[in-house]
Amino acid sequence: MLGALLTLESIRQAAKRIEGHVLRTPVLYRKPRGDCELWLKAESLQVTGAFKLRGAFNRMAVLPADTRGVVAHSSGNHAQAVAHAAAALGLRAVIVMPNDAPALKRARTEASGAEVVEVGPDSDERARRADELAAEQGLVLVPPFDDPLVAAGQGTAALELIEDSGPLDRFYAPISGGGLMAGCAVAVHGLSPGTEVVGVEPEDADSVRRGLAEGRRVSVPPPRTLADGLRVRTPGEVTWPVIREHVARVALVSDKELLDAMAWALGELRLVLEPSGAAALAAALREGRGRCGVILSGGNVDPALLARVAARIYCTA
Amino acid sequence: MLGALLTLESIRQAAKRIEGHVLRTPVLYRKPRGDCELWLKAESLQVTGAFKLRGAFNRMAVLPADTRGVVAHSSGNHAQAVAHAAAALGLRAVIVMPNDAPALKRARTEASGAEVVEVGPDSDERARRADELAAEQGLVLVPPFDDPLVAAGQGTAALELIEDSGPLDRFYAPISGGGLMAGCAVAVHGLSPGTEVVGVEPEDADSVRRGLAEGRRVSVPPPRTLADGLRVRTPGEVTWPVIREHVARVALVSDKELLDAMAWALGELRLVLEPSGAAALAAALREGRGRCGVILSGGNVDPALLARVAARIYCTA
Repeated sequence: MLGALLTLESIRQAAKRIEGHVLRTPVLYRKPRGDCELWLKAESLQVTGAFKLRGAFNRMAVLPADTRGVVAHSSGNHAQAVAHAAAALGLRAVIVMPNDAPALKRARTEASGAEVVEVGPDSDERARRADELAAEQGLVLVPPFDDPLVAAGQGTAALELIEDSGPLDRFYAPISGGGLMAGCAVAVHGLSPGTEVVGVEPEDADSVRRGLAEGRRVSVPPPRTLADGLRVRTPGEVTWPVIREHVARVALVSDKELLDAMAWALGELRLVLEPSGAAALAAALREGRGRCGVILSGGNVDPALLARVAARIYCTA
Repeated sequence: MLGALLTLESIRQAAKRIEGHVLRTPVLYRKPRGDCELWLKAESLQVTGAFKLRGAFNRMAVLPADTRGVVAHSSGNHAQAVAHAAAALGLRAVIVMPNDAPALKRARTEASGAEVVEVGPDSDERARRADELAAEQGLVLVPPFDDPLVAAGQGTAALELIEDSGPLDRFYAPISGGGLMAGCAVAVHGLSPGTEVVGVEPEDADSVRRGLAEGRRVSVPPPRTLADGLRVRTPGEVTWPVIREHVARVALVSDKELLDAMAWALGELRLVLEPSGAAALAAALREGRGRCGVILSGGNVDPALLARVAARIYCTA
């Protein structure tokens, strides 16, 4: 099982590999209620605005010296992460993006020097084109989550969090494909075995909640949640068994809770979060007790939505 | 001269004193142009949302054990800093605030357990009332900037910045009363002697620009800049000679440049800055060359203004 390659030791190795290339993001502390302390890991401040750089860099740093380049498919944070890591490592990068991706995300990906290949909006088409490019041009595919080295890289976020916070009662992170949660859960239980690991999913993207209830890996219909980074329909093959072993339960969050958490972050933390990046915070603000660790996973928000959230604070201040 | 007490050594002592009580804020790196690299010290993420906690804590940590409590006058970030530091040190805190201070700032000050005494909006009345309370109740006045220990505390921001960035070609920080700049300038020249230290002032709050030209400490008429934290009319008695010695020149910024820099920070750094907190960034974005260190001094922005800035990004995206 590939999941067996994901260990506290592999996460510690990842931490050494990414040092100096990935920002050690700050951990902010807040006590929103008397019985709840939050240690908030601000991955939104990561160089590319999201935790994804950790996994991409860790995967790409071990490529053989004769690697011709990498290819990835993504409309979002993984694209920017692979483009940035490729530039840092001196590798050619080709990113397959849907033609309906926001202009800003495409521009940022190209600004890192990556070549963008456009395909239709269908995610299967994207994956197929990336496979073709890998075969035709001898490029290595960098998967967004379903890979032990990618997950180990993401796990360094929790490693750093607990180095700063000490042992935790609860740990909250969002689950999409499961790379972040798998890596973080192994790190959390390696350093703080008694911690309850809580996965956070949008209400209509609850494949892990259903999967834990049914005892098997299941898929959900295409989610429509505001959290565009969490619209994956099925957890990964590598990440699912790790999640099943380590995640105690899933907390669901609504779009309204995501917006409220984004507004709270703007006002109380002075941080811009994207909806996916505010998911774990939304759950922790609602139900957190004791010493809670929370991953604020990203801050690449659409400007229109940011304006809407800022107006929300203004109107309730 | 009290300024002679402000040395690299006193700043290093301050760094030890505040460790564990004040957040070591992250330094973000960006390269907005080919010839300009920025190392951005995000003091907006400080526990109270601004660098002020460094100086207040450093001053208050050395008070004798029999101190009855502290008093400060401020409508803004210094109030929250003193209130927070007092709670951490187990001291009583009385804050004199104008009755037109934003409700949010008063609420945050009280949330730390400080007692708020309201006076009229005149800043002289505020200072007088604080002096009275100090005398009547045996409280120690914590000055906002004109004190070697306060300035040494603020200087730890630059100390940490250069520890992360290495030597710099230029250093940008805002100047109001001069506590931040005096402390930072001594730290910068102690660690990186060749750095050009650039003070940043709003166009109509340019007391240091005028003072450097005239070779003496001068006052300006009441400023109306959007940067409410930089509306001081005269640099401090302690801070002025230090500034005169270390600051090579002053860069002025307009309200429009402050708003543009706030918008840039929201989109590119995912950080909420207040206008004063964006002043040094505004100057560095306009004229920075080589390796530039920049203090992002605070993030306690009025929600209405934040909504306006977010809408600005939205409309230009």
